[in-house]
Amino acid sequence: MVIMMEKEATESQIEHVIEFLDERGFSVHRSTGVEHIVLGVIGDVSKLDIRDLKVLPGVADAYRISVPYKMTSRQFQHENTVIKIGEVEIGGDEVVVIAGPCSVEYKEQTMIIAEHVARAGVKILRGGAFKPRTSPYSFQGLGEEGLKILREAADKYGLLVITEVMDKDQIGMVSEYADIIQVGARNMQNFSFIRALGKAKKPVFLKRGIAATIEEWLMSAEYILSGGNKNVILCERGIRTFETYTRNTLDLSAIPVVKKLSHLPVFADPSHGTGIRNKVIPMARAAIAAGADGIMVEVHHDPEHALSDGAQSLYPQQFAELMDQIRVIAEVIGRKIADKRDSN
Amino acid sequence: MVIMMEKEATESQIEHVIEFLDERGFSVHRSTGVEHIVLGVIGDVSKLDIRDLKVLPGVADAYRISVPYKMTSRQFQHENTVIKIGEVEIGGDEVVVIAGPCSVEYKEQTMIIAEHVARAGVKILRGGAFKPRTSPYSFQGLGEEGLKILREAADKYGLLVITEVMDKDQIGMVSEYADIIQVGARNMQNFSFIRALGKAKKPVFLKRGIAATIEEWLMSAEYILSGGNKNVILCERGIRTFETYTRNTLDLSAIPVVKKLSHLPVFADPSHGTGIRNKVIPMARAAIAAGADGIMVEVHHDPEHALSDGAQSLYPQQFAELMDQIRVIAEVIGRKIADKRDSN
Amino acid sequence: MVIMMEKEATESQIEHVIEFLDERGFSVHRSTGVEHIVLGVIGDVSKLDIRDLKVLPGVADAYRISVPYKMTSRQFQHENTVIKIGEVEIGGDEVVVIAGPCSVEYKEQTMIIAEHVARAGVKILRGGAFKPRTSPYSFQGLGEEGLKILREAADKYGLLVITEVMDKDQIGMVSEYADIIQVGARNMQNFSFIRALGKAKKPVFLKRGIAATIEEWLMSAEYILSGGNKNVILCERGIRTFETYTRNTLDLSAIPVVKKLSHLPVFADPSHGTGIRNKVIPMARAAIAAGADGIMVEVHHDPEHALSDGAQSLYPQQFAELMDQIRVIAEVIGRKIADKRDSN
Amino acid sequence: MVIMMEKEATESQIEHVIEFLDERGFSVHRSTGVEHIVLGVIGDVSKLDIRDLKVLPGVADAYRISVPYKMTSRQFQHENTVIKIGEVEIGGDEVVVIAGPCSVEYKEQTMIIAEHVARAGVKILRGGAFKPRTSPYSFQGLGEEGLKILREAADKYGLLVITEVMDKDQIGMVSEYADIIQVGARNMQNFSFIRALGKAKKPVFLKRGIAATIEEWLMSAEYILSGGNKNVILCERGIRTFETYTRNTLDLSAIPVVKKLSHLPVFADPSHGTGIRNKVIPMARAAIAAGADGIMVEVHHDPEHALSDGAQSLYPQQFAELMDQIRVIAEVIGRKIADKRDSN
Repeated sequence: MVIMMEKEATESQIEHVIEFLDERGFSVHRSTGVEHIVLGVIGDVSKLDIRDLKVLPGVADAYRISVPYKMTSRQFQHENTVIKIGEVEIGGDEVVVIAGPCSVEYKEQTMIIAEHVARAGVKILRGGAFKPRTSPYSFQGLGEEGLKILREAADKYGLLVITEVMDKDQIGMVSEYADIIQVGARNMQNFSFIRALGKAKKPVFLKRGIAATIEEWLMSAEYILSGGNKNVILCERGIRTFETYTRNTLDLSAIPVVKKLSHLPVFADPSHGTGIRNKVIPMARAAIAAGADGIMVEVHHDPEHALSDGAQSLYPQQFAELMDQIRVIAEVIGRKIADKRDSN
Repeated sequence: MVIMMEKEATESQIEHVIEFLDERGFSVHRSTGVEHIVLGVIGDVSKLDIRDLKVLPGVADAYRISVPYKMTSRQFQHENTVIKIGEVEIGGDEVVVIAGPCSVEYKEQTMIIAEHVARAGVKILRGGAFKPRTSPYSFQGLGEEGLKILREAADKYGLLVITEVMDKDQIGMVSEYADIIQVGARNMQNFSFIRALGKAKKPVFLKRGIAATIEEWLMSAEYILSGGNKNVILCERGIRTFETYTRNTLDLSAIPVVKKLSHLPVFADPSHGTGIRNKVIPMARAAIAAGADGIMVEVHHDPEHALSDGAQSLYPQQFAELMDQIRVIAEVIGRKIADKRDSN
Repeated sequence: MVIMMEKEATESQIEHVIEFLDERGFSVHRSTGVEHIVLGVIGDVSKLDIRDLKVLPGVADAYRISVPYKMTSRQFQHENTVIKIGEVEIGGDEVVVIAGPCSVEYKEQTMIIAEHVARAGVKILRGGAFKPRTSPYSFQGLGEEGLKILREAADKYGLLVITEVMDKDQIGMVSEYADIIQVGARNMQNFSFIRALGKAKKPVFLKRGIAATIEEWLMSAEYILSGGNKNVILCERGIRTFETYTRNTLDLSAIPVVKKLSHLPVFADPSHGTGIRNKVIPMARAAIAAGADGIMVEVHHDPEHALSDGAQSLYPQQFAELMDQIRVIAEVIGRKIADKRDSN
Repeated sequence: MVIMMEKEATESQIEHVIEFLDERGFSVHRSTGVEHIVLGVIGDVSKLDIRDLKVLPGVADAYRISVPYKMTSRQFQHENTVIKIGEVEIGGDEVVVIAGPCSVEYKEQTMIIAEHVARAGVKILRGGAFKPRTSPYSFQGLGEEGLKILREAADKYGLLVITEVMDKDQIGMVSEYADIIQVGARNMQNFSFIRALGKAKKPVFLKRGIAATIEEWLMSAEYILSGGNKNVILCERGIRTFETYTRNTLDLSAIPVVKKLSHLPVFADPSHGTGIRNKVIPMARAAIAAGADGIMVEVHHDPEHALSDGAQSLYPQQFAELMDQIRVIAEVIGRKIADKRDSN
């Protein structure tokens, strides 16, 4: 941390700042700039609230010159985290596609969709059993019954299961059905919950909050990593901006930014990121081109009758074409996507 | 809901839209504008996802012409909700000030601050026992021990207690100590939690999420009201914008907006809304001038040693002056604030 | 400026950074933190693009620890700038109210409104003759004819004139009619224009751009001050956020922030800041409570027939009541507002 | 336009709304919903300010159910606008790459860069001669001397020229040197200027303002089209959001959105959109994958000594590799990019 004193700061103000820091166990290095005294703080400042320094008398401003996260940082671990679940590697050379319905609605629906996406080359099946909904009057998901259907469909087509958990109470039960636990954007800073995920036995798929800075997102990952669970996958899913034409603004530049700052795999969710079917396809391609380690896409065989998010779900045929396109794009940047399966 | 068809929409596309709505129990009124066929949807559209209409073939756009919340709306209840707790009325003629430390740290700290704010005319003591922190390495609160201290201090000085609950598991326990349950901004859309608050026995103080539209905020209140708990107090505490000089941008215009849309009381929290002590005072005055039913302010007798948010905590003397100023401002708009107590 | 090297930065990378700075005339002070080498840059860094440092090999991050503006800063001039125009002082003890129609429409309209606002205690008449409109099909203003009407109305009622200039070509002509030149939010970074205003003979009323940070706003003021025109009045008029209920989000916290950073007077425009009549009044009061040096308010005797912004224009009677309220609020914080005039 | 009356609206309030509209030449269609009277407005409502309706007594809300732009809309012109300049077609099958230095600095610099980009397959050379700079103390461009250099370099390597114009006074002079006139983000709503561009003889490259909604951007295009200049190219270059890690947030979803709403070509500028060199490449690829008609990229042979935006300029070798990658991506979506030239 660096502290710039005001031009007119008195010696006793400077000393007060130094004492403030000394009292908390920090050394201070004092230097004189053209116009200002500058104090360099030496020690682990991650627990200091920078604003406490900014409001001390005589302080012009204070700057944190280090990141507040540790285990999440690429400084902490240089090589990419690769998460292996069965035969699937996340964060490795292969770009991994997660697909499936927004909500698990009924068995046949999930089976049909699972078959379609498996044939197209998907390795992980998504489907919501517990749905966070803005309105208390909307469909809230099938609950455990939905998890059973999801597991059965995934097993039949050789897929892994990812599903959203809304609450720390559900972690144990969901872990019996799912291979990856998804944390929704609205829960990214539900600290009781993410702290509990540090003890979970399953990898966590951590969506970025719609108003979360990249730093806050990585701090939430730090809650999980520092709790003992090293298997965190980040997922950009759109941030809130003034533009309302799309549901959110998918911030694809977050992908190269996170790849530089952290060793964790980073995905994109173009379905929630745009909210409109015909925007999902171009943004899915763009996410791969931007270097994502994978994407999560909603697919439905009958979107007009979907119980949630039908408007952003791709038809199976659209999805299959998308897979063909992104296979080529992945190769352009030296990666690959699983082949489609033989339809026999 | 109103649906505008594309200029070139075919008759069969129009019929498909009508069938889509008919299948879901809606009547449709068809009219012909200068350039477009317009369909008016009749029925309770609160469960319809408007995007499902927007993506139907031939549809140019769709517009929801009603609000998605019901019980929260001033259309539902014309007169202001007034919440009575003991002798305190929230949402009535009196403007109510909540004050106290950010965190309960130790008994003497809470006692000193409680005495100061009680003398200045405060009716409700705040203090955090469970702290949501961006960093897993920051002080997380004293837990139940903090609640005991808070209750004791409040009782000694004749105050009510408000404190933050982070999780649905804590509702029962906290309800034994607190008079009002506070929901933090990051939990405004933690739906499991706010659903559970619909069954709580205590009033709920619902902070606006930093990226929540006013509509989403009122929808979260709807979760609580529709669950059976009519006592919800809204609190504006700053939204996230591009401006980083202040911690958040306190959206005071939300106060008159909410007063028009809803019958619920609305407060402002200038401490979190600005994050900087010398900005808290002007914004606290401004909140009262804008018509808030109350404010929540952080006060600390020794902010330099506060364990959280010292930088935004007022000194007791500053707070007492603020109280004197806002008493006059409240009167200007036909309201009042409790007198200071005799210091004997 | 402070530069933090990566933990693994090589000696030759560090030397390259030092050479880069040396070549541009800066001294460098090297120190060693717990984990990182830190370089302090000594000299006037206002012309350095900080990103040029950030992308040098081995650099983890770089921080500007000084503000990029000079003459605008309170470090440059401690005491408040007070602008005297005739008998009006802007930025002094008195809070100054500017009022009038959005657009000058026809002579009688302007006369009626001028009389109303003058009686209520206003000192400066506003009115647009050149209107920046989002749509090319909207009313664009009366041009010079409007300026003549405005001047005549102001002279009749002993008022000063403020009006918007859209273009550097208009500065000379408008200066013949107006006492203060207003720069609209969309032109805050029209650099040819604001550079030319540095040579103007009239004070400049510089509205904040809807997406401008406070720093960028002060940098635009710097263009004018550094060009030789010391008389700049800043005006907060709402920033763009995700909230769409109000036209913009009036950022009242910018008022105390600017008062600390700069010596220039700062106003607020609650009419554009909210865009809705019944929100203008509470936000006008709030602006005064927050410490604004003045406000600019739109008033119209017949808003339903106004050619622009009728929806946000106050009726004369509403405006008179507002003036009575803010007189009391100004006093609370040790300031005053001119009395209403005798209506004889 | 559709107007929803309040549940309790009186008959005289409804009649007042109808008269208000009748007076302005609109027909009104009245219908009765479940809870509300709804009024449909028939006629060209593009000149109506919707807020004027919203504030009428008894009105609950009003909704514009048409877009305010006309000539810019795909409803107005179904087929894509293809702009032909010499042998280059913009908006056709070919994806067009614009590249060159941020600023023209000196002749040799521009020559070297022009040669590099021409060889890589570029058709249009960019370079700033008039630079809009946040700080009055930064390099402001070479002016007309820069234009001469740019033209000479372009002619030598068979390229077209695009350059930024900051002011309507410069349009004539710049038009003598440039093939395409660029309007910067900060000038998108400089209405005097864009109105004048409606009379310009050259195509206009209109960057999106950093706080402009897509609708406002298309309205600014409407100024130019309605003035008589049909050749407008839109360019997304990043919007301002709360995320500060990147200079702006490149909103790539705007590309498919604009392609649906308008017939005009749409480009992306990943250099300004991210502001950081190693983010430019992934975002350039992503823009092509998202369906852009072209990209504008800054290239410099010696970025460390660039006078502006060196941090976001690609090295020629990086740029050549990028061109190879995007050629493949363009093909995936059925388009093509010009081959690299023989280096003889």
